[in-house]
Amino acid sequence: MLVRKPIWALSCALIFISSLSACSLLKNSENTAQSDTNNSPKIKNIILMIGDGMGPQQVGLLEEYATRAPNSIYRGDNSAIAKLANLGVTGLSLHGPADKLVVDSACSATQLATGVAAGSEMIGLNRAGHKVPTILEKAKGLGKSTGLVSDTRLTHATPAAFAAHLIHRSMENEIAEQMIQSGVVDIMLSGGLRHFVPKNYALPEHPKGFEANLKASALSPKSKRRDDKNLLAEASSKGYELAFNKSQLQQAQSTKLLGLFANSAMANGVDTSHGRVNVQPSLSDMTQTAISTLSKNDKGFFLMVEGGQIDWAGHNNDAGTLLHEMIKFDNAVNAVLEWAKGRDDTIVIVTADHETGGFGFSYSGADLPKAEQLNNHKNDVYKPKFNFGELSILDKLYAQKKSYGDIWYEAKGSAFKPTPEKLIKTVNKYSEFAINLDDAKQILAEQKNAFYQRGHKSLGLKTASKIHDFAPFYVYLTERPLNLIGRALSSKQNIVWSTGTHTHTPVGVFVLGPEALSKQFNGLHTHVELGKKMQRLLMH
Amino acid sequence: MLVRKPIWALSCALIFISSLSACSLLKNSENTAQSDTNNSPKIKNIILMIGDGMGPQQVGLLEEYATRAPNSIYRGDNSAIAKLANLGVTGLSLHGPADKLVVDSACSATQLATGVAAGSEMIGLNRAGHKVPTILEKAKGLGKSTGLVSDTRLTHATPAAFAAHLIHRSMENEIAEQMIQSGVVDIMLSGGLRHFVPKNYALPEHPKGFEANLKASALSPKSKRRDDKNLLAEASSKGYELAFNKSQLQQAQSTKLLGLFANSAMANGVDTSHGRVNVQPSLSDMTQTAISTLSKNDKGFFLMVEGGQIDWAGHNNDAGTLLHEMIKFDNAVNAVLEWAKGRDDTIVIVTADHETGGFGFSYSGADLPKAEQLNNHKNDVYKPKFNFGELSILDKLYAQKKSYGDIWYEAKGSAFKPTPEKLIKTVNKYSEFAINLDDAKQILAEQKNAFYQRGHKSLGLKTASKIHDFAPFYVYLTERPLNLIGRALSSKQNIVWSTGTHTHTPVGVFVLGPEALSKQFNGLHTHVELGKKMQRLLMH
Repeated sequence: MLVRKPIWALSCALIFISSLSACSLLKNSENTAQSDTNNSPKIKNIILMIGDGMGPQQVGLLEEYATRAPNSIYRGDNSAIAKLANLGVTGLSLHGPADKLVVDSACSATQLATGVAAGSEMIGLNRAGHKVPTILEKAKGLGKSTGLVSDTRLTHATPAAFAAHLIHRSMENEIAEQMIQSGVVDIMLSGGLRHFVPKNYALPEHPKGFEANLKASALSPKSKRRDDKNLLAEASSKGYELAFNKSQLQQAQSTKLLGLFANSAMANGVDTSHGRVNVQPSLSDMTQTAISTLSKNDKGFFLMVEGGQIDWAGHNNDAGTLLHEMIKFDNAVNAVLEWAKGRDDTIVIVTADHETGGFGFSYSGADLPKAEQLNNHKNDVYKPKFNFGELSILDKLYAQKKSYGDIWYEAKGSAFKPTPEKLIKTVNKYSEFAINLDDAKQILAEQKNAFYQRGHKSLGLKTASKIHDFAPFYVYLTERPLNLIGRALSSKQNIVWSTGTHTHTPVGVFVLGPEALSKQFNGLHTHVELGKKMQRLLMH
Repeated sequence: MLVRKPIWALSCALIFISSLSACSLLKNSENTAQSDTNNSPKIKNIILMIGDGMGPQQVGLLEEYATRAPNSIYRGDNSAIAKLANLGVTGLSLHGPADKLVVDSACSATQLATGVAAGSEMIGLNRAGHKVPTILEKAKGLGKSTGLVSDTRLTHATPAAFAAHLIHRSMENEIAEQMIQSGVVDIMLSGGLRHFVPKNYALPEHPKGFEANLKASALSPKSKRRDDKNLLAEASSKGYELAFNKSQLQQAQSTKLLGLFANSAMANGVDTSHGRVNVQPSLSDMTQTAISTLSKNDKGFFLMVEGGQIDWAGHNNDAGTLLHEMIKFDNAVNAVLEWAKGRDDTIVIVTADHETGGFGFSYSGADLPKAEQLNNHKNDVYKPKFNFGELSILDKLYAQKKSYGDIWYEAKGSAFKPTPEKLIKTVNKYSEFAINLDDAKQILAEQKNAFYQRGHKSLGLKTASKIHDFAPFYVYLTERPLNLIGRALSSKQNIVWSTGTHTHTPVGVFVLGPEALSKQFNGLHTHVELGKKMQRLLMH
């Protein structure tokens, strides 16, 4: 590693110096190469939408559901993502870190945000560990307004990489501090309240200002901080208006806005689709508020919107929830599409940071199709050799009423794990695909954790649920029961999963905006290149 | 099913009638919508290249290898597929059959060839079982020349769907007959000789004509026919020149050419890369010969080129072979790119029929990275929590010297299966990733086949190699030992697989040609739409 240091250090030192000259250089080459670029309207707004864990596989799930589920809520119409893709330009992008094959969300978002190759799990740094300016920070520097929206936590890897610079994504308290102290983000709407209140935080009996708002919300903050910093108070004193539920968000007037709508993550897609979320704004609500506020700035804005729980459903191998997370994100895409369609001053980029779960519909040898007599084939019967999966599976996935996580939580109650009978009852209550006693026993079986690491957040348990094949890739031990529910239902769902983590699958890049500018996103690229292109657009 | 019949039958009857009026209709809408279409040169040639089983995952493997393997034979340059994508237009396409979720190669190729939704495992028919004209047949009807090139068998699903019409892909003898008897394909270059010679075929002692060629080749035909038809003789009498090895192909003069270079499949990618194939032409050789011959026709041509063994490596979960198959196909893409680049009379479409294997690089909890002291982070160490995969894995995959199929075959010799010791020795001789005794025992373990179907070609065995998880998706029982080698090596390769069959993953569509015509392939489509667009281009 020491050998590399001078090179890294040098290249890093050059980043700040060269960013200006690089931009003029790029502008020159654009002038010569693409003569029509000059005639195109200058854009002032960039909206980047990241489906976390949304590979082509997940886009395919949504589009198959939208267009082919017998009872699709889209009634056969295309998804908003497909509509945007068909109006705009499509590309594919690889997202590996500087020196490895597979990326995590922090590194991937950093590469998108900075246009510079980063190390695994880093936030806003290059591989050598040096801070790199993000597109959001540069937008702010140009006098534009800036926003971050996510349905996970504001301090989670993806939003963090646009407005913080830290050696590891797990430092969420420090991320919260940097976000508030820099003041670089005008609109921040997400979950993650726990990282913004001091330890042992309790509301005063007669709260005023933002604390009155917090009291009026349904939230009871439980801090994860280890210090007495009150970042809500800091934010308030810096001029941020604070909102803690949907109605407060709707009433907010300020152009600087901090909305924290959950202690940790916001509501999942299943609960959202089934109308069980009233107090929180939806991802689409937050996106619309962000755009209507940010667009007041005549100089334009940069907004990043994350559908962050697509990734979590993928990690859990939970196909029903995955569909609902895709629908949740697609609703936000639809809101953006409605606003941006036909505008000549805005570029919308819908992409992902990586794929999660290695999700796929697949054909099997179970429940083979029956022979069929076709009208004009009197001498032959038509009988496919395998089960290629009924379209009704799409409707059954939509009908799932709770996430596997919530099913597991309800089944076990206060116990460490549920009885087989309770598990069967609970799964079969909320899923259209049933498990039996054998399945339940396999889900509940345990084994020695061969990858035990003392003190490791995910691998620090000595025993874990028993995963037979590809066990090294099921690193989130407490989520393994959910993976095993996925395996138990796979044959009935015609669904397969390859991993409990991420895959390298190139992700789609769908870009709407003036053609002369959007067409550069066509083709097969990397996220580092994509990041560079977005920064160039900002300077355009 | 009966309820549906009238609709199917009607729509089918209308296909032939409406194809002409539909075309003029489409032309009209093009005239209004895309004013620049009229100014674009008319194209006369369409080259369709199908990577069988080549999802974005497989394209990602190739591109990661090409650009980031420390010892890449591409020396960091982009793959030809990426170059073509970046020069042209990129889209994504879903490929499900008329009434199911997951597609097989026959149905998918039929949908590409006809622009009409088809049933599983059908060849050149719509879902109701009626014949539908293919783009190749329509090209021939317009006076163009036509060609089919594949590294599998000429009678295999993908090439078959362009020039035959049968209720099931397994009817390879009938496919061979239709191909020769229709005379619709001018250039046919592939394997599959066994379906073209009569049963019990033996060469005469003093062969003349094409039989002299056959004798001079390295091939000893072993017929799969159950009749006395000699399709080679028929082809010859219809004016086809016949070639059976590389040098005969090079010397061929005719514009009608039947080249059959193997009894069954042609050489795999590993053998090709490692220079063990001298007698057979490569996929790139066949493609170049096809283009140079077909392009003699002033009216232009339609050519389909299939990289068909990408799919097989995916079915076997054999990552090293998969990389070599991708390289083999990429060499053919490169040959086409070199010929077509800058031409204004040709459209090249590179796509796939589906994804196979659910392939992915993935991060794991095995062999975690060591802590690293970064220069400017004196108080923290940098230590990612997981193993994100070394780039050197890409070189090790390239270094694989035999396919898992050939490794298994060599290890077992004449026995039903190898000893654990022999298996270890053979795997470790040809793969850079080693297995141990535990691995070997797991690969050799057997279980009752829970999906037994009497007389089923794939599922007709009562016992099979033991697959724990996702077993219903490992339907090719005799290939399961190869899948298990893949599982045994997965942790060391940072590679995961979700299935022994196909996935629904939308596939890339990379199109090179005049921009006014190619840009319609942008966005998220279906293979039926793609097929329609190609037919429209043909009529343009």
